[in-house]
Amino acid sequence: MNKDQLFEQIKAKKSFLCIGLDPALEKLPKHLLKYENPVLTFNKEIIDATKDLCVAYKPNTAFYECMGLKGWETLIETWKYIPQDIFSIADAKRGDIGNTSAMYAEAFFNQTQSGMGFDAITVAPYMGKDSVEPFLKFKDKWVILLALTSNPGSNDFQQQDGSSGKLYETVLQTASGWANSDQIMYVVGATKGAELKNVRKFAPDNFLLVPGVGAQGGNLDEVCENGLNDQCGLLINSSRGIIYAGYGKDFAEKAREEALKLQVEMEAWLRRANLI
Amino acid sequence: MNKDQLFEQIKAKKSFLCIGLDPALEKLPKHLLKYENPVLTFNKEIIDATKDLCVAYKPNTAFYECMGLKGWETLIETWKYIPQDIFSIADAKRGDIGNTSAMYAEAFFNQTQSGMGFDAITVAPYMGKDSVEPFLKFKDKWVILLALTSNPGSNDFQQQDGSSGKLYETVLQTASGWANSDQIMYVVGATKGAELKNVRKFAPDNFLLVPGVGAQGGNLDEVCENGLNDQCGLLINSSRGIIYAGYGKDFAEKAREEALKLQVEMEAWLRRANLI
Repeated sequence: MNKDQLFEQIKAKKSFLCIGLDPALEKLPKHLLKYENPVLTFNKEIIDATKDLCVAYKPNTAFYECMGLKGWETLIETWKYIPQDIFSIADAKRGDIGNTSAMYAEAFFNQTQSGMGFDAITVAPYMGKDSVEPFLKFKDKWVILLALTSNPGSNDFQQQDGSSGKLYETVLQTASGWANSDQIMYVVGATKGAELKNVRKFAPDNFLLVPGVGAQGGNLDEVCENGLNDQCGLLINSSRGIIYAGYGKDFAEKAREEALKLQVEMEAWLRRANLI
Repeated sequence: MNKDQLFEQIKAKKSFLCIGLDPALEKLPKHLLKYENPVLTFNKEIIDATKDLCVAYKPNTAFYECMGLKGWETLIETWKYIPQDIFSIADAKRGDIGNTSAMYAEAFFNQTQSGMGFDAITVAPYMGKDSVEPFLKFKDKWVILLALTSNPGSNDFQQQDGSSGKLYETVLQTASGWANSDQIMYVVGATKGAELKNVRKFAPDNFLLVPGVGAQGGNLDEVCENGLNDQCGLLINSSRGIIYAGYGKDFAEKAREEALKLQVEMEAWLRRANLI
């Protein structure tokens, strides 16, 4: 999916919501445990209940890998169940030397080879340009590079002052020379709402994937105020706040209610910004 | 495996060789393609032919993930085939917010849950302390943190000057406050042989995992001269130089020959350093 197509989806659905599919077996509604694959059943019901309210789904690979072989199978089946017109993000935070990153690109972008053809993958920047480039060779696929994350540990290195600014600023500046806003997005945590204004100086046109709204304490209004651009430019993610909204048989309905609340707020922001 | 046990293995085998199990289907000897799982057959033959010459095996997860579900199964089966007394490293370069890194720790350390119980995992430092801590909660398991990697992109950020030194120096300094040398190793590329001396100022007691000898151009003597400490403190990795030493029916024998060359050089260095 390219940038224009993504913006069209946002306008059509009046939403820039991304839903994180991070299911943990011990947190699932108990009635699902009777199914052959409770996690997959859970994901499918969440997708069915929310697919008209969001423009992206983002499974985090850790939640699948911890279940061993069955988990990897569930990741593949979950990707397959995401509707084609919804932007799919492998939240994998990969990155390795060039020839190895090329293998990761095959793993997440090349459906023929791996069974999965995500639109985007999150990548860690520490290893630099040649660790990112192999992902950029796929047409209409995206790198979502970690810039300023939502966790406490983001202070350890990302915020460190360097000769050309803070590390996350250097990452934004350097990566802008690797590809334009048609191929690179950045992860900027919602808990850093005020710093979004600063991020926009370095990345005015890029989409930003913003996790941390909800369970991690991020504020939607602050993110929108500082982050919206003329093609929206934001994908705001909520995981736990939506998928664990309910624990009973009506869990999917509860998830829909939470997603709807966010969609309504997002619609208001899109109107305010004259984007719809 | 703890640090003393690892050092015992090094002394017993007179080797600190780590072999990277990074098999690509298109590079395998043609006669293996008739097997149900050529990659697994290849790995098993490589392990059988080299297990007395090395102290560690390091499958890189990218090479398995790109093969989809079958690849993940091959990764699990490969781990199971690595002898218990050989240090096993998941070269996965993971790292995420705390609760997510905890899932990755389960994926690679908790055999009951995931089918794999590696001794160590490589971790990217960009997200800071809480992205690393969950891996440290497992007794006798190791984090191998990326510090200074062997690829060209290591210049983009790792070598950037900051207020408290270069980024990789800050990583070494900061991470030394998270855990001691019984739990953390660092990745330092062999192509940076001369800089090992500098790394040792920050990490005198830690084991260093040194990739890049062989195909990537690293020099074994330079690494040993600058990197050996009183418990050896080095695991030197070779992947392509060993596993692709031959392409015929005798590929495993050829791999053994290359491994043996390195083991002989390593034995000489261990003697020179009075460690055996």
